[in-house]
Amino acid sequence: ATTFRASEHQHIRYNPLQDEWVLVSAHRMKRPWQGQVEPPLLTTVPRHDPHNPLCPGATRANGEVNPHYEGTFLFDNDFPALQPDAPSPGSSDHPLFQAEAARGVCKVMCFHPWSDVTLPLMSVPEIRAVVDAWASVTEELGAQYPWVQIFENKGAMMGCSNPHPHCQVWASSFLPDVAQREERSQRAYQSQHGEPLLMEYGRQELLRKDRLVLTSEHWLVLVPFWAVWPFQTLLLPRRHVLRLPELTLAERDDLASIMKKLLTKYDNLFETSFPYSMGWHGAPMGSEAGANWDHWQLHAHYYPPLLRSATVRKFMVGYEMLAQAQRDLTPEQAAERLRVLPEVHYRLGQK
Amino acid sequence: ATTFRASEHQHIRYNPLQDEWVLVSAHRMKRPWQGQVEPPLLTTVPRHDPHNPLCPGATRANGEVNPHYEGTFLFDNDFPALQPDAPSPGSSDHPLFQAEAARGVCKVMCFHPWSDVTLPLMSVPEIRAVVDAWASVTEELGAQYPWVQIFENKGAMMGCSNPHPHCQVWASSFLPDVAQREERSQRAYQSQHGEPLLMEYGRQELLRKDRLVLTSEHWLVLVPFWAVWPFQTLLLPRRHVLRLPELTLAERDDLASIMKKLLTKYDNLFETSFPYSMGWHGAPMGSEAGANWDHWQLHAHYYPPLLRSATVRKFMVGYEMLAQAQRDLTPEQAAERLRVLPEVHYRLGQK
Ligand SMILES: O=P(O)(O)O[C@H]1O[C@H](CO)[C@@H](O)[C@H](O)[C@H]1O
Ligand SMILES: O=P(O)(O)O[C@H]1O[C@H](CO)[C@@H](O)[C@H](O)[C@H]1O
Repeated sequence: ATTFRASEHQHIRYNPLQDEWVLVSAHRMKRPWQGQVEPPLLTTVPRHDPHNPLCPGATRANGEVNPHYEGTFLFDNDFPALQPDAPSPGSSDHPLFQAEAARGVCKVMCFHPWSDVTLPLMSVPEIRAVVDAWASVTEELGAQYPWVQIFENKGAMMGCSNPHPHCQVWASSFLPDVAQREERSQRAYQSQHGEPLLMEYGRQELLRKDRLVLTSEHWLVLVPFWAVWPFQTLLLPRRHVLRLPELTLAERDDLASIMKKLLTKYDNLFETSFPYSMGWHGAPMGSEAGANWDHWQLHAHYYPPLLRSATVRKFMVGYEMLAQAQRDLTPEQAAERLRVLPEVHYRLGQK
Repeated sequence: ATTFRASEHQHIRYNPLQDEWVLVSAHRMKRPWQGQVEPPLLTTVPRHDPHNPLCPGATRANGEVNPHYEGTFLFDNDFPALQPDAPSPGSSDHPLFQAEAARGVCKVMCFHPWSDVTLPLMSVPEIRAVVDAWASVTEELGAQYPWVQIFENKGAMMGCSNPHPHCQVWASSFLPDVAQREERSQRAYQSQHGEPLLMEYGRQELLRKDRLVLTSEHWLVLVPFWAVWPFQTLLLPRRHVLRLPELTLAERDDLASIMKKLLTKYDNLFETSFPYSMGWHGAPMGSEAGANWDHWQLHAHYYPPLLRSATVRKFMVGYEMLAQAQRDLTPEQAAERLRVLPEVHYRLGQK
């Protein structure tokens, strides 16, 4: 019998955090690609565009004028998917037709006054200001809502409709689907093994090493054993931390620095402004914030779609939508490729 | 208090088949779209291209020459994600690092010898031949494998790398993730309510009517109450049928006809060759085929990404990947729009 090699032999892996499986078929990277290539990036975004509603001094859809902000800037999304005051659909008349009330708020956070920068091109103190803004908005909205979802869609490929560096914050009166799954898994793991799932996971990855991308005094970046997207990563604090606002000043500085390194590696991988969706998950808040959430560990997921080059992405379609996620290179191969990339941005290297 | 209206007030809905929630925020259709538009379709695909490996008489990557087929044509995928003989990864040393063996086969099925047709442009007897081919491949691969996933990725937007009309069939030694979820939900529903979930669901939708798109003697097409994609549909037989090979001749004819109508409506919606991923789900097979699977009901899911026009799609990114699926029009609005569309294809109407 042949010896198993993950990079040659398809197999399935389990995601214990989200209770899902992925099919890993690394030999598939050998197939030729004749499908869609993505349109080339707009390389020249103007630093300031008075018609861009995210720019300092611009007028937004609702007529409000943005301040001449100099750091981060948080405001209400003019087209929110969640509003604070929607009436309830009432009780369901049948188990197959269940609807429930949803209330919340949607905010937009600009990272920087300039439209032509992205996080990896910002300085560590500028990124640190973003971390602080994330912590405060979590604290503010978490006072009222059980879930505060911070997420960044970067790049047109990820449905981002505005090149200005920004993220969104959607707070909701309900625990969204993915949060519910992570809640269930982490709670069950803690009750079975007596410690938080992601604390043990981070420790194991530090020992095993082959999926580590970056480590710092307070943080780890790794390609999870169960990664679905080609260069997906998980960003974890070393200390047991439930939520963003609890991060110490030193942890925040270090986070800004490791984020800059990770995003620089991402951009360097295919020498492009690397598209992704990313977001933070921490323990639920709102009126239940005082309950015991010790089974949680704060973390960020990065889900980048590019697979082979700046223009060839992984499509999660067909088999993935109907049956199961599938990936074309192993998480260990992805980690190795990211690990060896320089920590100086390809656009700044020449200077 | 305001009266709840689904088309005005955001709410969440439950998918009892796949145990997931979706956020419905229909008022969001009002926001302007400034993001990515998809590249226009290649309108002229040559009927025959000797360099296209899916065409009759063409030479494939492995050197094999396709026959001059005149109907459907089934062959082994030259770059399969699943192979019949992969060794097992061995037993896992830690609950957070679980891998398992995966074996299977991947086939490609051409629907028609011509590259410039799609299912809605084919005749009902030609589509009927596809239905028969689906039934036989399910029977053939289901003799050995517990799950046979038939799926079609249509359009470059859905990662389809070849314009020739075709689908894929991936059979696996394991029940994929989505199949496991549907198995769990249908089993639990049957044991609680004494009948198959999708039989009761179809009956309810026939009574409620507002999500129906098409009905025929043997089939229903509806936008499910919990639809995630803008114009997602569910195709259900009226009779309790576990798997494709069990369809009667009359049900197969009627299926070909209702598929042609549905796909014609899809193309007519934005006057484009409507992209989607679709696939069939039926009761598990393989060595366990003889067990009691009466809680299952055969069905097909259609997941089309377009939202506003032939070039503006819904992106499932950021919030959707990190938290929960979100849709911008109600399933009832989508059903109404599909229902009123003509059943004659816009490209054939003039003739
Ligand atoms: O096999 P194809 O059509 O080249 O590939 C397409 O479908 C597969 C199955 O859904 C996906 O894994 C690929 O990402 C997609 O590009
Ligand atoms: O709010 P935006 O950036 O216009 O919209 C983008 O992100 C949202 C949240 O992930 C998605 O629902 C939209 O489909 C996407 O286009």
